[in-house]
Amino acid sequence: MGMRRNLCFTLLVLSVLVLSASLALANTLELDKDPELKSCRRQCKEEFKDRQKKMCLQKCEDDYRQKRREKQNRECQVKCGEMYDEGGQQWQVCRMTCQNNYMNEINEPGSDQGQEWEGGQEEEEEEDENPYVFESHHFLSKVKTEHGRILSIPKFDRRSKLLRGIRRYRVAILQVNPETVLTPTHLDATSVFFVSSGQGTINVIHEDRRDSFKLEKGVLLRLRAGTTFSIVNHRQRDKLNIIQLLRSVNNAGLFEPFFLAAGSNPESFFTTFSSEILEAAFKTSKGELQRLFSRREQGQGVFVKASKEQIRALSDRKEGGGIWPFGSQSRGTHRLFKQPPTQCNNFGQLYEADRNVYPPLEDEDLSISYANISQDAMIGPYYNAEATKIAVVTDGDGYFEMACPHVSKSSDDEQQQQEGRSGVTYHKIRSAIKTGSVFIVPAGHPVVTVASNRGNLEIVCFEVNAKHNVRYMLSGKKNVVTKMNREEKELTFDAKREEVDRVFGKQDEELFFQGPKWRQQPGQGRAYE
Amino acid sequence: MGMRRNLCFTLLVLSVLVLSASLALANTLELDKDPELKSCRRQCKEEFKDRQKKMCLQKCEDDYRQKRREKQNRECQVKCGEMYDEGGQQWQVCRMTCQNNYMNEINEPGSDQGQEWEGGQEEEEEEDENPYVFESHHFLSKVKTEHGRILSIPKFDRRSKLLRGIRRYRVAILQVNPETVLTPTHLDATSVFFVSSGQGTINVIHEDRRDSFKLEKGVLLRLRAGTTFSIVNHRQRDKLNIIQLLRSVNNAGLFEPFFLAAGSNPESFFTTFSSEILEAAFKTSKGELQRLFSRREQGQGVFVKASKEQIRALSDRKEGGGIWPFGSQSRGTHRLFKQPPTQCNNFGQLYEADRNVYPPLEDEDLSISYANISQDAMIGPYYNAEATKIAVVTDGDGYFEMACPHVSKSSDDEQQQQEGRSGVTYHKIRSAIKTGSVFIVPAGHPVVTVASNRGNLEIVCFEVNAKHNVRYMLSGKKNVVTKMNREEKELTFDAKREEVDRVFGKQDEELFFQGPKWRQQPGQGRAYE
Amino acid sequence: MGMRRNLCFTLLVLSVLVLSASLALANTLELDKDPELKSCRRQCKEEFKDRQKKMCLQKCEDDYRQKRREKQNRECQVKCGEMYDEGGQQWQVCRMTCQNNYMNEINEPGSDQGQEWEGGQEEEEEEDENPYVFESHHFLSKVKTEHGRILSIPKFDRRSKLLRGIRRYRVAILQVNPETVLTPTHLDATSVFFVSSGQGTINVIHEDRRDSFKLEKGVLLRLRAGTTFSIVNHRQRDKLNIIQLLRSVNNAGLFEPFFLAAGSNPESFFTTFSSEILEAAFKTSKGELQRLFSRREQGQGVFVKASKEQIRALSDRKEGGGIWPFGSQSRGTHRLFKQPPTQCNNFGQLYEADRNVYPPLEDEDLSISYANISQDAMIGPYYNAEATKIAVVTDGDGYFEMACPHVSKSSDDEQQQQEGRSGVTYHKIRSAIKTGSVFIVPAGHPVVTVASNRGNLEIVCFEVNAKHNVRYMLSGKKNVVTKMNREEKELTFDAKREEVDRVFGKQDEELFFQGPKWRQQPGQGRAYE
Repeated sequence: MGMRRNLCFTLLVLSVLVLSASLALANTLELDKDPELKSCRRQCKEEFKDRQKKMCLQKCEDDYRQKRREKQNRECQVKCGEMYDEGGQQWQVCRMTCQNNYMNEINEPGSDQGQEWEGGQEEEEEEDENPYVFESHHFLSKVKTEHGRILSIPKFDRRSKLLRGIRRYRVAILQVNPETVLTPTHLDATSVFFVSSGQGTINVIHEDRRDSFKLEKGVLLRLRAGTTFSIVNHRQRDKLNIIQLLRSVNNAGLFEPFFLAAGSNPESFFTTFSSEILEAAFKTSKGELQRLFSRREQGQGVFVKASKEQIRALSDRKEGGGIWPFGSQSRGTHRLFKQPPTQCNNFGQLYEADRNVYPPLEDEDLSISYANISQDAMIGPYYNAEATKIAVVTDGDGYFEMACPHVSKSSDDEQQQQEGRSGVTYHKIRSAIKTGSVFIVPAGHPVVTVASNRGNLEIVCFEVNAKHNVRYMLSGKKNVVTKMNREEKELTFDAKREEVDRVFGKQDEELFFQGPKWRQQPGQGRAYE
Repeated sequence: MGMRRNLCFTLLVLSVLVLSASLALANTLELDKDPELKSCRRQCKEEFKDRQKKMCLQKCEDDYRQKRREKQNRECQVKCGEMYDEGGQQWQVCRMTCQNNYMNEINEPGSDQGQEWEGGQEEEEEEDENPYVFESHHFLSKVKTEHGRILSIPKFDRRSKLLRGIRRYRVAILQVNPETVLTPTHLDATSVFFVSSGQGTINVIHEDRRDSFKLEKGVLLRLRAGTTFSIVNHRQRDKLNIIQLLRSVNNAGLFEPFFLAAGSNPESFFTTFSSEILEAAFKTSKGELQRLFSRREQGQGVFVKASKEQIRALSDRKEGGGIWPFGSQSRGTHRLFKQPPTQCNNFGQLYEADRNVYPPLEDEDLSISYANISQDAMIGPYYNAEATKIAVVTDGDGYFEMACPHVSKSSDDEQQQQEGRSGVTYHKIRSAIKTGSVFIVPAGHPVVTVASNRGNLEIVCFEVNAKHNVRYMLSGKKNVVTKMNREEKELTFDAKREEVDRVFGKQDEELFFQGPKWRQQPGQGRAYE
Repeated sequence: MGMRRNLCFTLLVLSVLVLSASLALANTLELDKDPELKSCRRQCKEEFKDRQKKMCLQKCEDDYRQKRREKQNRECQVKCGEMYDEGGQQWQVCRMTCQNNYMNEINEPGSDQGQEWEGGQEEEEEEDENPYVFESHHFLSKVKTEHGRILSIPKFDRRSKLLRGIRRYRVAILQVNPETVLTPTHLDATSVFFVSSGQGTINVIHEDRRDSFKLEKGVLLRLRAGTTFSIVNHRQRDKLNIIQLLRSVNNAGLFEPFFLAAGSNPESFFTTFSSEILEAAFKTSKGELQRLFSRREQGQGVFVKASKEQIRALSDRKEGGGIWPFGSQSRGTHRLFKQPPTQCNNFGQLYEADRNVYPPLEDEDLSISYANISQDAMIGPYYNAEATKIAVVTDGDGYFEMACPHVSKSSDDEQQQQEGRSGVTYHKIRSAIKTGSVFIVPAGHPVVTVASNRGNLEIVCFEVNAKHNVRYMLSGKKNVVTKMNREEKELTFDAKREEVDRVFGKQDEELFFQGPKWRQQPGQGRAYE
């Protein structure tokens, strides 16, 4: 019997081992499907950066694997139950075999720490290699209804440590559908509006008066935090698209709209107050207030479809009302395209507005430019001395290249250094861009932006920290090298001055140049992406 | 014998299981009593925020449970020792049974992760729901002696991410007892003093001269960082209470007083230097210096009880000395209540000081207001366009309500968004306030403050980021809605203009209104708290 | 046989236990040698601060110990393999004994948590006690070639939370070897150059012109971010040493040089761009561009040894070119030693430059001073009211003492307070300093700096947040106590006015004093370090 028992026991041990092995396999296969693990990972990515994120991701996977192992162990133990009748000891030994397998798996080198950690890192690398570009999938929606929406890109410092310097800013997109009104709203952020397409009217309620301004492509408007505004798109077909650069007044990078309008989700901020407070504030009954403040259905209220008469009334009043002579005053708008471009050749035009032409930009330490890069042309190479450029593509597609000395992943120079990686290296940041892309060019970083062979590439750029900024050219007319003296040229390039001059003097355009040739392969236009 | 052994073994296993179960029960019951766990949790709360805090709390509990389990396992193993004499294998199996129980407990789903995590979260929620109010238990004491004390509220950004925008500021309370002197001190922070009650004198030592100013309720004084000052309370009975807004010069939110005075704990900063340094600096022997710098006993030295003659001398000199003509100059004080209130009706008065009436406030980008809200009345609803208000209740009680679009707990909008919670919702922040409460109203956030039915509610408000601030009314005269045109009103509220006008036009007071009725239940005055 | 088996089993168990014990011992001995552990610890120290660092360090050790235990367990299990042939059960039991030992070790109180945690803490304390001094081993090298180097101290906020207030700044050392040129470069940081020794020329390329300035000891130059400059050391023997204070424009505390020069590692930033981009930008063939931009070998290119003719040409041009009349204009240099010292006595001289004598310092909110402390003399005690001093020792040695109320380790006052440690205490920060040391004196902190008995101690000080700064003396002429009135003196020191006056009036020098006597022990000059 002892023999039979031992055989039986051995079979059990084998079956248990097989079970474990198959579970271990499942383990790996299902790793990417587990919803809990997915959500854990997502949370890590949203809430942490760099090494902390990695630790968090690792924790997710460890937890997941641990749970799997525990489940496996329980199943194994259950199987042991079959041995129970054969005698307590056999059953005990079976259970312990399960336990042993469980422990061995924990102990297996690399089960948790090794490969997964690496895996995490790889994923990390991929993600953070270029923290300078935001695409549509990065956008968050503040409000999204059938009549319009407000989107914003995430906080810059959440994306990468390298963007901490502009963490007070946010880029938002405001889209008002045809014959629709964005009802009165204020923000806890100062904002600069740039109309990228469409036509409409913005009504602004100041402490002591109400202004009305026409909106059309190229119109700029700075609005102080807390100012209530409403926007009308009076067109029958076209959407009104506005790009906003926001500067938080409360908390670096956080901003929220405060809607007056009746409705639910978003609701009027009035409905937050207790009814007894509202009754006292308005000397009005609760019933009447409720009727007024929560009239509309879900998703209604912020963007409201208006009748033709209402649209006309809202637009008429403005145009005819004579409230319009505030061309370039501190409360008025500025039309970027009204003045001639500051740079212009066959390959593109650059329109610029700084504090001299639009004084409100001084308070914001901001300048705004609009580059219209011709098909197959490019702007740069150049760099901004002090300003960081936040660029939004308003039309077209292409790509940009930038030289970046900061290693994005281990974004701290000390670390590099202390790990013996002395020296400075420049990384090529290169990314395809298209309508809606947002990209960042930090001060000092040489950059080139290239339009595709399918049409012009139009980009609006917000340049923050603009006060003392200078744009330094790196090729073409006025490039920095031409200002060097003979010896500097020779020493810098270890070449005869004539050779340096030949290379740096050949390009005779300024800022905008004929771009690189796109490879002529039918159907493969984006050869350089 | 095999039989007896097996029976014996089974009994042991059973007893071990029972032991485990009872320990598991104890486990839960004692969870909240364990001092180590308590201290661990407290540390977590002090040092981390949000998800990190939760992870830390979780770690505390895991560690605690792990230790319990280990203890349990050791006890179990000890019990197995009884089996030792019966034969090595039985003893081994017993030990492994213990081990098994131990492992099973670890594996039990929810033992660590599940419920405790939830528990942690709940506690979290409760704590962080309203990061905008600081009560007496939040105050930290810098100095606390029988003759006076210096308290401060914690760093704002430590309390909540939402308060990061004001992290350079701190609120401190300075209390000098009757006939007592706060001996000469400087701070590594610029401070604005507001006397909330009592009378006294402040002596200020500048680089090139010494000034003396009278202190009484409503007096404002800005003192630059590093300026040495002393304060005398010359009254026989009343304490002198000063509210300070501090702006750190060294490190956002950190500030420290530097005491000249002889004493120990707090000691004179002179005593920090080596005696050979002091001997050289003063050309004086070590003994004489020691006598001078560490004369007093523990707790003495900073606040010193003075004789009537000393008090008189210190106060006389000032009043009679003709050093007083610095009314509203940059080194002088400003008396807030000397000028008429800027808003006044039956329901309250508002006194205001900005950079125009007290120029030093310009450097601080600060304005100061004092609201005296009548019994049963209220101030608001309104919002500040750009300024964040740091309000300190100086007298009375009541409550405030504020509409806040930021979810405090998961204080980052991205997270919300990415979890599919698109859209903007306003949370009602509501809190009872009483003498000594500090509350924060961020820019753009609509707010109402209500006085109780027991008396006036007096509040001093420091408004930071004041330069371009505008107070926008949300009801009563001059409310923003009355400035809208017909179509805006109709579209905003989905109602006839007449209805909107009726509601928004009925209240004819400005800023201060008759408050909501407090429920008339005898003995239950704080109906709305 | 049963007996034999049991004996055999017992022996095995014993051997396994001995094996475990010896491994446990090894465990501890090898703890400090393991390369993985070392690297893990280093990473922790670099990436985290305070409690997080501790947790990270703990994790390193836990991981290490866990791996050791697992290895141990595997070795134990392997040993059990010898039992396999003797029968399945014995083998199982052996394995479980291993497992038990393994588990017991895990469970052993203090194996992970206890002593190691404490160990971590101790190490921590030692390290962070004085975050105010940076020595040569703290310096990181940006560029290091045989012809010159660029070093910088780490980010201030990475060193300590207490230095967060100056986190935008970095100190860098630029060293150009004799007859060498630093080829044209721009930085993404505004920098203030101070020449500490040597002679040379700096050429600056502005948007619209090229300037050339002579460099010699005491010359100050502010250069805006993005400005391209080159530096020539025209001396045959002496190095040219420049101390730079950098203020990042992109990201608090990060800065990078952008080199134009041909070479590899560091390479020209031009080579980062795709060749098709460069071809288009320069209208030049790929081959010719490659020749120009990557001509030099590794480590060459940034600092270039020049011929005597080239050096002469570069220096001649400047001196003779008449471009030199920009003495104290916004684009010119300022010679600190050209004006008489602002403080001068037998014990030292102080040279100062503020925004009045060198206007570019206004933009930087900076003032610069140079203290030449005589052998055996000292400067202070004094404190700066608003400015934080970043001091770099340019020659000599000595030490400084500072009174600091902030506990560096648990650098947050709240924590202290909440743990019941109410009250303010001053810590003596004391550190030896020598040529190349950098030390920080925060605003409000009383400080003394003492020269050794081996020669003068020379220090250049960058004082940030300088606008409203006042230097308050704590002994000697004009000390703050002499401005107090009788009663204040008596109350502050609990002494007769005469005694106070005697001590505070005896020293009749100002700022610089005869220092403490160094103990006269032959060969032990640094008695006070």
